[in-house]
Amino acid sequence: MSNQSPVLYGGIEGGGTKFVCAIGTGAGKILAETRFPTTTPDETLALAVDFFKEQSQALGLLTAIGVASFGPLDPQPASVTFGHILPTPKPGWTNADIVGPLHAALNVPIGLDTDVNGAALGEWRWGAAQGLDTFVYLTIGTGIGGGGLANGKLMHGLLHPEMGHIPLPHDKMADPFEGNCPFHSDCFEGLASGPAMEKRWGQKAETLPPDHPAWDLEAHYIALALRAFICTLSPQRIILGGGVAQQPQLMPLIRQKTQATLNGYVQSAEILENIDSYIVPPMLGGRAGVLGAIALAQLIVTNV
Amino acid sequence: MSNQSPVLYGGIEGGGTKFVCAIGTGAGKILAETRFPTTTPDETLALAVDFFKEQSQALGLLTAIGVASFGPLDPQPASVTFGHILPTPKPGWTNADIVGPLHAALNVPIGLDTDVNGAALGEWRWGAAQGLDTFVYLTIGTGIGGGGLANGKLMHGLLHPEMGHIPLPHDKMADPFEGNCPFHSDCFEGLASGPAMEKRWGQKAETLPPDHPAWDLEAHYIALALRAFICTLSPQRIILGGGVAQQPQLMPLIRQKTQATLNGYVQSAEILENIDSYIVPPMLGGRAGVLGAIALAQLIVTNV
Repeated sequence: MSNQSPVLYGGIEGGGTKFVCAIGTGAGKILAETRFPTTTPDETLALAVDFFKEQSQALGLLTAIGVASFGPLDPQPASVTFGHILPTPKPGWTNADIVGPLHAALNVPIGLDTDVNGAALGEWRWGAAQGLDTFVYLTIGTGIGGGGLANGKLMHGLLHPEMGHIPLPHDKMADPFEGNCPFHSDCFEGLASGPAMEKRWGQKAETLPPDHPAWDLEAHYIALALRAFICTLSPQRIILGGGVAQQPQLMPLIRQKTQATLNGYVQSAEILENIDSYIVPPMLGGRAGVLGAIALAQLIVTNV
Repeated sequence: MSNQSPVLYGGIEGGGTKFVCAIGTGAGKILAETRFPTTTPDETLALAVDFFKEQSQALGLLTAIGVASFGPLDPQPASVTFGHILPTPKPGWTNADIVGPLHAALNVPIGLDTDVNGAALGEWRWGAAQGLDTFVYLTIGTGIGGGGLANGKLMHGLLHPEMGHIPLPHDKMADPFEGNCPFHSDCFEGLASGPAMEKRWGQKAETLPPDHPAWDLEAHYIALALRAFICTLSPQRIILGGGVAQQPQLMPLIRQKTQATLNGYVQSAEILENIDSYIVPPMLGGRAGVLGAIALAQLIVTNV
């Protein structure tokens, strides 16, 4: 057995601006990778098909392909719209079928889930969520999205979580910015995404100095949202990914404010004493998207 | 086989003011029941032990006993504090061991979970959540608590959900009441529990006429909370129990305001078109607590 080639999986990180395609092993080793801009569904998926066809001639047959995509999307195999993007502001992608064209062209099982559920699964398999059965993976950047596992399986339910769109307390005396979510104005995403910060402060979030009051306010909103997730789901850990969350001055503020807003109510040592290992950055960094997609491919074959 | 006695389970609904103990079958038929005030842990548990000893002499041996209790509590069998109440404002009950004394006296497996997880399990087994794998059971009355199933199992994670303590938007111009939660002032429970309504309006919630503006405000807060739960967990259904939620004028308002606050963002027919079967009252009514406890007893034996 030890001389056999490893089982190979394909992964597609389908982002709003770029697609990343990769081939990797079940141990999370990437053997080939490409990236290209997200244009129309037809054109973008055709480039993905080309990559997998070419590379699998060189590397060997793929067992399955996982797609970790921007959403909203329908991840339920039993649904009539399974594998499709749902209505989205992104031009041309509403109702686009992702799974159908890939399966037709490549004839392997295709798994599809949200980018955040993919990243969560990658962190569970190889990163910061190993051994847990209930945790949240949150990304705070251009948008805010959340996924994770509940009772050992990816969170789906009705469709998939939309954690960026929870309502939050918003003191307009302290923060008169109205919020920029086209659906809810001052939901979590409308108050705390990168573009919301840019609109509020008149400059890009990453150009704000570490001691700018923007970061204290940002940590305030993130902590309120984490309290909502903790009280709703009781996660064993929260992983904070995305560009905004990676600002080094944020993490200590978020941890401290999350403890403060919970105010001792959840009597768990993980929160009261070990907050540094309860709210953590991702371990897979820039690899999370594509490794998550490969983990999704594995999942549909092995169910683990 | 058909002449054998049915398998018997014990159930304890452990409330803050009263305990209800019952013996029932796996089909949810209650054969004996008693209730008594909640006093000290020793005295209260001794009365429960007496009931089960006496009744099982008459009815037959119990296979297991389930306890659906007020919390916070530790429902994780692997934990050192398993089966104990955690720090609580209720005098005498902080760190009280519930499972230990019952097991020592009755020598059957004892299952323990929150009252709301018990009620959720009862509704899943015999009521409004049959066939679902991810749903929320919320009780709005003296306090606000939530539980449910995620991916086919009771929600635990770190400990158990505390859905009454999520933060909510609170416009103090429209509603100057500060909230009455001793931990978070104006969290969901602090704004919308029965005692919060009583304190805000100066009279008991159940005495407010159906056209009083209190109900519109109450539905407003409940709808915001449901949006938080929907965006976080993506439940397939939400069951609203508890005394406040049973006011008949509330349900239509809650449904309408939940759709309004989501504002079309979650593209699911269940929410957009079938909200009347998405946000529903419990089917087990006053039986939910004790049937939930019996369902918990079944769960530890059959794992179903």
